[in-house]
Amino acid sequence: MNIIVAQSGGPTSVINSSLAGVISAGIENDFDKIYLSLHGIEGIINDEIAEVDKDKYASENIKAKLMARPSSILGSCRFKLPANFDDEVYKKIFETLKAYQISTFVYIGGNDSMDTVMKLNNYMKDNNIADINIMGCPKTIDNDLMGMDHSPGFGSAAKYIGTTLRTLRTDVDIFDLKSVTFVEIMGRHAGWLAASALSANYGMDKDVVNFVYLPEDRKSLDQVFDEIKEALKYENNLIVALAEGFRDKDNKLDEERFSNQNDAFGHKIVSGVASRLADLVRNKLEIKSRAVELSIVQRTSNLISKTDADEAYQLGFMAAKLGIDNTNLVPVLKRKDKNEYEVYYESVSPDKIANNEMKIPETWLKDRKTLENEIIKYTLPLIKGEVEQVYENSLPVFVNLKDFII
Amino acid sequence: MNIIVAQSGGPTSVINSSLAGVISAGIENDFDKIYLSLHGIEGIINDEIAEVDKDKYASENIKAKLMARPSSILGSCRFKLPANFDDEVYKKIFETLKAYQISTFVYIGGNDSMDTVMKLNNYMKDNNIADINIMGCPKTIDNDLMGMDHSPGFGSAAKYIGTTLRTLRTDVDIFDLKSVTFVEIMGRHAGWLAASALSANYGMDKDVVNFVYLPEDRKSLDQVFDEIKEALKYENNLIVALAEGFRDKDNKLDEERFSNQNDAFGHKIVSGVASRLADLVRNKLEIKSRAVELSIVQRTSNLISKTDADEAYQLGFMAAKLGIDNTNLVPVLKRKDKNEYEVYYESVSPDKIANNEMKIPETWLKDRKTLENEIIKYTLPLIKGEVEQVYENSLPVFVNLKDFII
Repeated sequence: MNIIVAQSGGPTSVINSSLAGVISAGIENDFDKIYLSLHGIEGIINDEIAEVDKDKYASENIKAKLMARPSSILGSCRFKLPANFDDEVYKKIFETLKAYQISTFVYIGGNDSMDTVMKLNNYMKDNNIADINIMGCPKTIDNDLMGMDHSPGFGSAAKYIGTTLRTLRTDVDIFDLKSVTFVEIMGRHAGWLAASALSANYGMDKDVVNFVYLPEDRKSLDQVFDEIKEALKYENNLIVALAEGFRDKDNKLDEERFSNQNDAFGHKIVSGVASRLADLVRNKLEIKSRAVELSIVQRTSNLISKTDADEAYQLGFMAAKLGIDNTNLVPVLKRKDKNEYEVYYESVSPDKIANNEMKIPETWLKDRKTLENEIIKYTLPLIKGEVEQVYENSLPVFVNLKDFII
Repeated sequence: MNIIVAQSGGPTSVINSSLAGVISAGIENDFDKIYLSLHGIEGIINDEIAEVDKDKYASENIKAKLMARPSSILGSCRFKLPANFDDEVYKKIFETLKAYQISTFVYIGGNDSMDTVMKLNNYMKDNNIADINIMGCPKTIDNDLMGMDHSPGFGSAAKYIGTTLRTLRTDVDIFDLKSVTFVEIMGRHAGWLAASALSANYGMDKDVVNFVYLPEDRKSLDQVFDEIKEALKYENNLIVALAEGFRDKDNKLDEERFSNQNDAFGHKIVSGVASRLADLVRNKLEIKSRAVELSIVQRTSNLISKTDADEAYQLGFMAAKLGIDNTNLVPVLKRKDKNEYEVYYESVSPDKIANNEMKIPETWLKDRKTLENEIIKYTLPLIKGEVEQVYENSLPVFVNLKDFII
């Protein structure tokens, strides 16, 4: 029998490590053919499917090359399966899976993708399809997947953010004046990545990051101004790590206000919360203030945490293995409750993860020092080590799909 | 006698390599004391001056640590000396230089700083001061300094940009739709850094960067739309490298229009040209379009070109040496006209550099292919090699001033 794998949702720096895990498990468990669906589930719907060349995969050390290659090499999609099982798309999907003699299908993705996995499993139950196992393999930089200690992709993004903030600190300190730099970090509903910026403070004489504002901890604009004003009495140049989803308590920063604005050409202005706060602080406190958006660069950096990549690989391997064992569970990461960092793997039903969001624990939000201590303990092990990169002419080169398909 | 050094203007990733060059030259040439002026010339005006601990500098390998540390470790300033030599500030500066028994003063900076060097030299001529030599040591990421082949700082910024674009390409390609990503890169009047983004195309099967728009090559918005529309027939996802100073021929993007806009709080909207073009393309062509601003992160990355750092060190060393030789010239980099990259050093009068800007040669702007060939030949040698970084807990750590002063 054959195995197929696809990648879905937003990319991460280690999503190809999970792919390598699935392929390696496919080879070790003697699947006849290992198929790759392009652009997530859409590849199965539209019959855009490639096949792994097992010899090339082994001889050219594609596993290591995939682990060094950020962003979904199979492409991705944002396709949501309809609630109605009578929809043609379900028939099409299972026709393709049967045509390719698939017994195991691994879908690497976030909570939306787990919704797809859940629906496909429910469809199979309703239609008495028992010879296919459809598994999810979790990923997201946002770290908001329920049922697990942390999400693969988070560690590498946090490593990029911590590194960038360390260098940014050397930059913002140079002028002898008062300034505030707002750094906008991904995270709409959960502030894990913005909070992880506090890791940059670890072991430093002077704070790299002075404040963190999170979606989980709404403050009024007055509170923000007061905190900043007070801190500027003791520090010249502040860095504020800001989750893109931070909004003030009184909704003065709400979407409505801003999306009603048009630019000079009559188009909506899409501006981030960092630049809004930078404008406000500049005007209110009459000091230098600027916004830095880490943008999509933060999610697919080639500065990849080795710990993160290894864990993502294990999850991919386990997902394939769970399919072989005839289950439809999703492998998840758990952390042992002891001083030295160690993970173990469990498996849960996809509905535990689908359409849900893990927030920063409320007890961590007591004050900045508590949050800093907790997030450092949590994050530092996840950013450990670097995946070695290949350079040509002093620029990174990455493996291509054509390097290991038939 | 003693030597003093200061850093001025915007930071670069190798500005401390030049500082290391000055300090090493100071030690090798038996200066009694090596002084560091904090915040550029302001340190001399306000008597904020530190002294290098020569023993620590040698025993703790501070030279290597400075070369791995981005951004002006001495701090910086944007101070412009007045045109009137009767101004008190000149008296103050030379009083301090005499009090510290300075015979050589090296000012590391860009074209504004060379204006300072020039004025101080003219003041000395007018006032018959002959026992002090004041030298400039050039730096800028913008690569717009006249009189030299390239500027220290440019190579490392170009390396960061090329690396970031290679990873960004893996990100923008994942969805099966049409999209344009505008990447805003530093450069207000000269587009060297934006053009250097084309280096990312070198040796690739598929272009990483599809278009470059430069301040030196103004196009109409219609031209921009037409080029993008045409390219989208053959490519799904385009990346456009955009100099922050790019403006359209017909001034539809001009500052005036935008600076008249106010946000919801009545404050001016400071938005970049990338997000403006992304808005326009999204509305005009009805496709996905977004802006990525590389922001100040691009100028002080710890991804440092070894070639760039070595050259910056040499220029610092030479600047000090030129002072010892009783000149007031500025050392500059030249490139030998041969296939293999090799530089040589010359020295020029600071007025050759001050208040001037080097643009991309017009012959390079004939078409994209010409620009790509020329800029690749020009840039690739400058990004060669990496300066080794020190990590603790998987995050970079940098040397501090207190590690090597008395």
